[in-house]
Amino acid sequence: MSTTAPQRSDEDADIERHVADICRRARAAARRLAHASDAQRSGALLRIAARIRQEARAIAQANAVDVEAGRAGGLGAALLDRLTLTPERIEAMAAGVAIVAALPDPLEGIIREWTTERGLEIRQVRIPIGVVGVIYESRPNVTADVAALCLKSGNAALLKGGKEAIRSNAAIADLLAAEITAAGLPPDSVQLLRSTDRRATEAMLRQDATIDVIIPRGGPGLVRAIAEHSRVPVIRHYEGICHTYVDSGADLSMAADIAFNAKVQRPGVCNAMENLLVHADVARPFLEMLAPRLRAAGVELRGCERTRAILPGIATASEADWHTEYLDLILAIKVVDSLDEAIDFINQNGSGHSDTIVTRSRERADRFLREVDSATVYENASTRFTDGFEFGFGAEVGISTNRIHARGPMGLRELTTYKYVVRGQGHVR
Amino acid sequence: MSTTAPQRSDEDADIERHVADICRRARAAARRLAHASDAQRSGALLRIAARIRQEARAIAQANAVDVEAGRAGGLGAALLDRLTLTPERIEAMAAGVAIVAALPDPLEGIIREWTTERGLEIRQVRIPIGVVGVIYESRPNVTADVAALCLKSGNAALLKGGKEAIRSNAAIADLLAAEITAAGLPPDSVQLLRSTDRRATEAMLRQDATIDVIIPRGGPGLVRAIAEHSRVPVIRHYEGICHTYVDSGADLSMAADIAFNAKVQRPGVCNAMENLLVHADVARPFLEMLAPRLRAAGVELRGCERTRAILPGIATASEADWHTEYLDLILAIKVVDSLDEAIDFINQNGSGHSDTIVTRSRERADRFLREVDSATVYENASTRFTDGFEFGFGAEVGISTNRIHARGPMGLRELTTYKYVVRGQGHVR
Repeated sequence: MSTTAPQRSDEDADIERHVADICRRARAAARRLAHASDAQRSGALLRIAARIRQEARAIAQANAVDVEAGRAGGLGAALLDRLTLTPERIEAMAAGVAIVAALPDPLEGIIREWTTERGLEIRQVRIPIGVVGVIYESRPNVTADVAALCLKSGNAALLKGGKEAIRSNAAIADLLAAEITAAGLPPDSVQLLRSTDRRATEAMLRQDATIDVIIPRGGPGLVRAIAEHSRVPVIRHYEGICHTYVDSGADLSMAADIAFNAKVQRPGVCNAMENLLVHADVARPFLEMLAPRLRAAGVELRGCERTRAILPGIATASEADWHTEYLDLILAIKVVDSLDEAIDFINQNGSGHSDTIVTRSRERADRFLREVDSATVYENASTRFTDGFEFGFGAEVGISTNRIHARGPMGLRELTTYKYVVRGQGHVR
Repeated sequence: MSTTAPQRSDEDADIERHVADICRRARAAARRLAHASDAQRSGALLRIAARIRQEARAIAQANAVDVEAGRAGGLGAALLDRLTLTPERIEAMAAGVAIVAALPDPLEGIIREWTTERGLEIRQVRIPIGVVGVIYESRPNVTADVAALCLKSGNAALLKGGKEAIRSNAAIADLLAAEITAAGLPPDSVQLLRSTDRRATEAMLRQDATIDVIIPRGGPGLVRAIAEHSRVPVIRHYEGICHTYVDSGADLSMAADIAFNAKVQRPGVCNAMENLLVHADVARPFLEMLAPRLRAAGVELRGCERTRAILPGIATASEADWHTEYLDLILAIKVVDSLDEAIDFINQNGSGHSDTIVTRSRERADRFLREVDSATVYENASTRFTDGFEFGFGAEVGISTNRIHARGPMGLRELTTYKYVVRGQGHVR
């Protein structure tokens, strides 16, 4: 399936060896971490939280060098903002780690247990996944965030941050390693890949013998490149093309509140609405009520021909609009003739992330909830609730668009897997 | 990360289009199948079982042509045997489908439900994965087997069998499609990829937008090639390098029975033992008891130096022996000084499949069960029990060596995933 391997330079081989060595150490650490008690894992997190507060100034200084280099290198304002660690952000980072420490142990409890016909006692128990690789972009607080989630769930973490944040990440990683060691856990439990060479990232993606799962956190370009090239299983966090469908007979005032919230409250996130579908029966009164609110909030409207007949002057939604994640104050609107058409449209054009129906009919809601093939489906609520904290998970790894292992909001439990423990009394087949 | 794409011929493009078309139809079928009732899904399976019995002769005739072509083409005796459908094997195929029909609905039941602080009612419900691609080798009964498991769990199946079995597989697939249609389910619920071109398989591996998971069933070479090249998540069924560890103070007669069973009862399967570890305290009496039984069963023994001091004349186990899956009557034996050494050895050399301790100490068993990092860990039982039927799952998709989604024996439930259904009363953030 592949052709001959390209010639590799000595430098390539060095990078490969370096990454392989880090991965081996992560694997060894993972074996020990898996049997650490929750008290030990959470104790390490509390030490880390305290140390982040103590070293806030040193972290800020390292970060200032990154920000200066970024500015000199022509980094845009938005990226510079994401890169910057203010005192408030450093305090939020410490507080986040302490909150994760206080959550219930995700490894506790037996999933199922039963005795087979032949008398074997089988328990399915939760265990950490093992070695979790996280590849992320500019925000340095992700370093502490992800380390906390992985440690709490007993996983060794291998972190690869963006090169623009390397000094900030290194300062945080040094402190993590020191406190992890002081807490009696393996020093290699959290390792930062300090090479900024992209070949180091590529080498990580080939480490399917030592890394168990890779979680990319960043823009769709990053996620797609990783998903395409990784031999290690990837938990993807792709785009959300989320829909609000306003049914015939819906409470239009509720529908307008939900649609407005889903589009406007935070348009740049994956659970914001991109497409609005409206049943023909209620299209005119609903759109005439909603459009002025959206326009007042600065939302640009695009529509199908029937929408444009109701809201003259708005642009025509092109085919591409229906499957674009704007992440911006833009909304595509379509009038549909039936619940079926809405369901089909969402299944065709959506991204399987989050979709909602506003309706007064429980029966029609049930059909929507059953037939829309998305990770999270809503009745009479905004799609913005797709979020680990809103779900009550206490912590969020991200929102998975995978169909297997973890779907939708990922909390600590989604960083675990299981094994079967079988007890016999000399059983043979 | 990749270099320039190679030039593609028109034929390549045709194959790509053909596979893409089949995949699109599978996706559409999956959407409808997901909401079919268990009565419909199981009813289709009962029709299929009856039809296989009716058409046993026609299936045998198609198979005879494959077998003849295989013989003429120089296929080896073992492969010819696996390819051949005897009347008994056809009956077993029908019976297998009927048994799957009678199993409980894997889609039934709510995994968790709770109400959030803000009053959203969240249910985590089981749903089919969607489109399952299965790539397998010579045995044509896999076609009916896998189709039954996928249909029962509400998944559309895309089957790619070996080219040596193409006529047998086509005869079975035709009958499947006819009965699925007659049962009122989408005709594309089970499709056989009839191209025997390997480019068709390669095209399947690129269909990450339409295929949700690929399950390779075949030798380690097949599985590894697929895992390395697939953009679609793969549930691997790799090798099992399984260990029996005989602890100090173990019941040696029980230990001998378990070790003998694990090695000899069916040496060619993944849950058979490959390495035997014996605590130094009991090595001499144990090995002197077990070795004659193993030799009488035709087992070739290889050992470490301390083993060879007890069993003179056996070959030295090389470094490679410790991580070789023999799938044959060969056993590598090592004397260890402690439980820790055994655990470390297994975690280093095993494949994370199935490993057992024979001991009288519950405390030492607990340490082994906790610290050995394998999908199934045993106390006082043969590793041969790692099997969906022995576990009581009623059906077996295979034995996963993945660490996420499904680990160990996979039954119908492991062909499902979940979604979150959220009910609000106008909730906005």
